[in-house]
Parts: sequence; structure tokens; C-alpha cells
Amino acid sequence: MHIVIMAGGSGTRFWPVSRELRPKQFLNIIGDKPMVVATYERIRSLVADERILLVVGEQHRKETERLFADRAVRVLAEPKGRNTAPCIGLAAKYIDRLGEKGPIIILPADHHIGDSEVFRKALLQATRIAADGGIVTLGIVPTRPETGYGYIRRYSQPEADGTYRVLKFVEKPNLETARDYLLNGDYYWNAGIFVATPQALLEEFEERMPQFARGLEQLQPSFDRPEFETKLATLYDSTEGISFDYAIMEKATRPVYVVPCDCGWSDVGSWFSLYEVRIFDQQDGLGNVTEGSTLQIDCRESFLVSRGKRVLTALGLTNILVVDTDDAILVADLKRSQEVKKIVDSLKESGSIDLL
Amino acid sequence: MHIVIMAGGSGTRFWPVSRELRPKQFLNIIGDKPMVVATYERIRSLVADERILLVVGEQHRKETERLFADRAVRVLAEPKGRNTAPCIGLAAKYIDRLGEKGPIIILPADHHIGDSEVFRKALLQATRIAADGGIVTLGIVPTRPETGYGYIRRYSQPEADGTYRVLKFVEKPNLETARDYLLNGDYYWNAGIFVATPQALLEEFEERMPQFARGLEQLQPSFDRPEFETKLATLYDSTEGISFDYAIMEKATRPVYVVPCDCGWSDVGSWFSLYEVRIFDQQDGLGNVTEGSTLQIDCRESFLVSRGKRVLTALGLTNILVVDTDDAILVADLKRSQEVKKIVDSLKESGSIDLL
Repeated sequence: MHIVIMAGGSGTRFWPVSRELRPKQFLNIIGDKPMVVATYERIRSLVADERILLVVGEQHRKETERLFADRAVRVLAEPKGRNTAPCIGLAAKYIDRLGEKGPIIILPADHHIGDSEVFRKALLQATRIAADGGIVTLGIVPTRPETGYGYIRRYSQPEADGTYRVLKFVEKPNLETARDYLLNGDYYWNAGIFVATPQALLEEFEERMPQFARGLEQLQPSFDRPEFETKLATLYDSTEGISFDYAIMEKATRPVYVVPCDCGWSDVGSWFSLYEVRIFDQQDGLGNVTEGSTLQIDCRESFLVSRGKRVLTALGLTNILVVDTDDAILVADLKRSQEVKKIVDSLKESGSIDLL
Repeated sequence: MHIVIMAGGSGTRFWPVSRELRPKQFLNIIGDKPMVVATYERIRSLVADERILLVVGEQHRKETERLFADRAVRVLAEPKGRNTAPCIGLAAKYIDRLGEKGPIIILPADHHIGDSEVFRKALLQATRIAADGGIVTLGIVPTRPETGYGYIRRYSQPEADGTYRVLKFVEKPNLETARDYLLNGDYYWNAGIFVATPQALLEEFEERMPQFARGLEQLQPSFDRPEFETKLATLYDSTEGISFDYAIMEKATRPVYVVPCDCGWSDVGSWFSLYEVRIFDQQDGLGNVTEGSTLQIDCRESFLVSRGKRVLTALGLTNILVVDTDDAILVADLKRSQEVKKIVDSLKESGSIDLL
């Protein structure tokens, strides 16, 4: 068995703390460790370090090697971000070449898991099914009518082992539809966590992304050789960015299964989402979460983050997000924090390159 | 004629921009000059510079002398703040000793006047009445049912010259009462602006604050002599802090007049009050006022002040105040900005002396 941790994403959803060169998975936005390290620590008991492969962006290779200097994990750098499908194809080829016949667990590096033990149990159950050649995904049991996630619809009847066949993957719903999904019981949140053997994955790539699969085939002799980087860059240049869900999962020829998992999962996709995760650990009775040097009076349901050297004071706020860093401050309606991209885009337009 | 500019107040209402050693009157919170300079420039056409007396706190004497280095104005330093009555008594004695028989105009240094010409006309009208021995105050024509100001009630019948006798001074009203005052038409806002001859003032002090008046009498030979500071400090130590309204005006034995004045006056007593003044000059159609390096998206009726080196970004805010300085940030409900004192008190309690 192997585990792939996908840490290639860029992103500005946590601006001004996250920057182009410092995306979420390399930040300690929950706890005191970068999320990629927390993800590694969550699953390291399942396999030996050398069976863990971190796929990162080229610009984060050095930092990753530094973070895992004492660990025998493998690091593979993508020349540019091309979404999850090329990343998973590349990882599958890399591991296939090592002679692995057993399943690969594929995880994003930047998710939060409240109950790691439940999570690991679900992963192990998924590997047992995947060993027979199917593709398995974790289905997060929904706890609210969330409109920000894609959903997985199962067949109602369970398989003999208590898992389910997937009926279909569905796009982010509107609120009414999300409420229906929650009541229905056959829908799970799609967490982008997959388990399958290298062979199963590569066969699906041959079927659905044949040109990319041929490129991987031609790349194979170059793994670990000097020309690898150049050849991989050429392949990525000619490959479109596309998600694994869209390119493969929704059209897979082999059976697709879902293992239900109720593990306190969050994709931590926005400041509000982070607030929801952290409110469990830091409850002041009024719904405030604070970090760093802060002083608040009469605030409610607000999220105050001081990462600069200044003291952050707040008076009479409700549902407000404040994030202070050394060179920028964000003050926002907490419920609209997913729109922080608008601020980043606006800074980009105005040429404030040093703040991106 | 003389003019006294009272610049002795301390205050933290504009924290974190104002600090104990940097009160409002020495800040450029409106326009690009300190308020004390703007106050001087507003009235300098009325008298020669040497007939203008600035009364400041001892801790601001140097800064005042620097600000007015090119001007022949006189500067008198109080050893400590004792509210307006001792300040006005001291100034009256100082000017009386110069041989002045004509009226003194007494102005706070930290008010905003929208229409300086209307203001100066009212002051000149007041001096004409005061020359006959009465005490005159400016009555600001109210424009809203303000509960934050004291009021002046006039007799309904005007005097021959169009001014009014004062019936009484009234405390800050509640909202219902303030609405009655606004409709009634006999009420003005008390702006703390007074005009009277030195003789009239000193006679009132002898009547109402006899001990302090005797102290002033004993102080007289020491003016401009080395022992002055020590003697003044002794006098102030034995004098209670009390406002001129309360100590003198409300109980004056001589006639008290009010000159109505509709000059766009504001005491600029809070961030919200400053916002109301500045919204006239900087209207973006959504009610936002911004200063410094700011970027806002979808904000309404918010006040964003960046005085540090960082860019201040805001998303989806309504009625929010943000003030950034080099060592502290305040984010508050704009309508509750007068409660900033609570933040300052809390910092004081927690021993954050360097932020006060």
C-alpha cells in the first residue's frame, strides 16, 4: 500500500495570511503545524515513510524537503498546477514503477479531520475494497445543507461489507437541493479522497485521458534521471488542468464505491470554514475565535486573527472577520469571507504584486 | 480684543490615533493640519498674533512653540488639566494684566467649523455685546436631536440687536427631550465658546470661585517671572477641576446672552462624529470615508483609516470603523465608536502602557 498526499494547490482563500508562494497547506492555520505536516502525521501509522509520496508544486519542493528532512517520505514536484487529474496520474505512474500492486490512498494535504481514528478506519476499509480493482471514495456524512461542496449519491442498498456503490457524482447544489440531499440520506460530501490500485488508475487514464496516459508511458524511463524535470514540464505544458472527479470518477468504467465516513471533516476552504473548525476548540460563549494579541469588547461570532506585531482591538462587532499581518489587513463580513478572492484580484489589478 | 484658544484637553476618544501625549487638538484628523493650527488660522484675521493666547498642557508646550514658531502668538502652559474654569480664569488674569479692557473670545482648539465666515461674524457680534459687560456664548443652531451635547435655552423674545438673553443652560437630554428641543426652536447647542471682558470674567470668578480668584490675585506679580511655574502648580494643586459652564455660566450674576450661529459646527467628539464631518467632503455614493492606503469592496457607511504602513482591505462591511496605526488596530461598530474609552481602559488594566 502507498499513500499520496497532494500538496500542489495554490490559493489565496486565506489572504492575507496565505500568499501565492505560501498556500494553505504550508500554513499552520489550525494548530501549530503546517497542514501538510498534520496530514502526514494523521496517516503515518498506516504505512512506512518511504511508501508516502508528497506531490508538491516545484516552488515548494525545498520547503517540503525542509519540513520532512527527518522523514524518509518521497517528494515529487509538479512543474505547474494542473488540477488533480494529472497529479493523480503522475503519482500512480510513479508508484506503479516501484512495483506496487496494492492500493494507493490519495489525500489532499489541506483538509481538517476532527476524528483521525474514524478517518483511518474508513481509509483501511476503502483499501480492502480497492484491492479487488474498484475505485473507492470516502463519502463524508453531511451535517448541514452545505452548498459549497460537491456530493456523491450512493445506491440505497449497501454491499455485503456495508459500503455502497456510487450512483453518481453531483455538482454543488443550491440551498433547497442541499436540504433535500441532507434529508434523503443517500448523499455524501465529496472530499476528494480516493483509493485504488495503480493498475486500476492507469487503465482509467488510458480510457479517459489517452494522450496524457501515453505521455506518462513515455516519461517512465526518465523517472529519477536528470532529464525528468524537462520531460515532465513538456508533458504538463501539453496537458489541460482538470479535476480527477470530472475527468475520471464521473465516467469510470470499473465499479466505483463509497465508504461512509463521519470524521469531522472540513475542506477548510475559507476563513468562515476555518472559524467553524476552530470554534469547537475555542468557545467563549459568544462565538468568538481569537488568535494572537487581541482585545475584544462586546463582540459576537467574530474571528479575530492577529499575526502581525500589533495589538488588534475590537468593539461591538458581530459576524466580522479581522486578519492582521505585517503588510496587510483584511476586515470582512465573516459570512462573505469566501469572496476574499475579489480583494486579491483587485490588488493584482492595481499592481500590488508584493501583497499577492 | 484678545482671543484665547484652549488647547489643554487630553483624551483618548480617537484612540489608536490619539494617545495620552497626542490628544485630538494636536492631530490632523481633518485636513492636513493639527486642529489647534486650523483653529488659529480660522480666527487670525480678527486680531494681531500677539493678541492670541494659546493655553496648553505643560507636556505640549514645546510642540506648540514648534507649531507656532513663525507666529507672535503667546503660549501659556497649565501644569495639569483642571477642566475649563481654571483655564479661563487664568487666561483672563493674564490678559487683564496686559491692560486689555475689551472682550476676550474664548475658543476650544479641537472643534470643526464648516463655515468660517459665518463663525467669525457671530464672534464679532458677540464681542459688541460683551463690550457692555455681559457674558456672551455662541448658540449653535441644532440640526438633529443630538443627545451628546449640552443645550442653551434662550428667552423667546430677541433683544434689539437680534441676539437673545439666556434663560438657562441644560444638560445633555435623552432622545425624546432632544426632539422637543429641536422642534421648540428656543434651544441651541452649547459649543463652549464664550466672549466677555477680563473684568467681567474676573468679577464672576470672585463671586463663584473666590478661593481660586484670590490665588490668581496672588499669582499676578509672578507672571513672566521664574517662580511663575511653581506658583501656578501650587494654585492648580489646590483647585478642583470644573467646567466654566457649571462653575460660572449657569450661575452668572451679570446678564448672559446667546448669539445664534449656524456655521457647520461639530465638537468632533468621536470617530463617528469625525465620520459625519468628513462624509461631506468625501462621498462615494455608498457613505464610505477612507484615508490612507485602503481597498474596499461592497462596503457601506464605513470609515476606513490607514495610518500605518499596511494596506487596509475591507469586504462587505456595513457601519464599521477600522483604524490602523503602527502599533494598534481598532475595529468597531461605527455607531459605538464613542465607547473606545472601554478599549483604552482595558489596555490600561492589562498594563499595555505603551499603547496609551
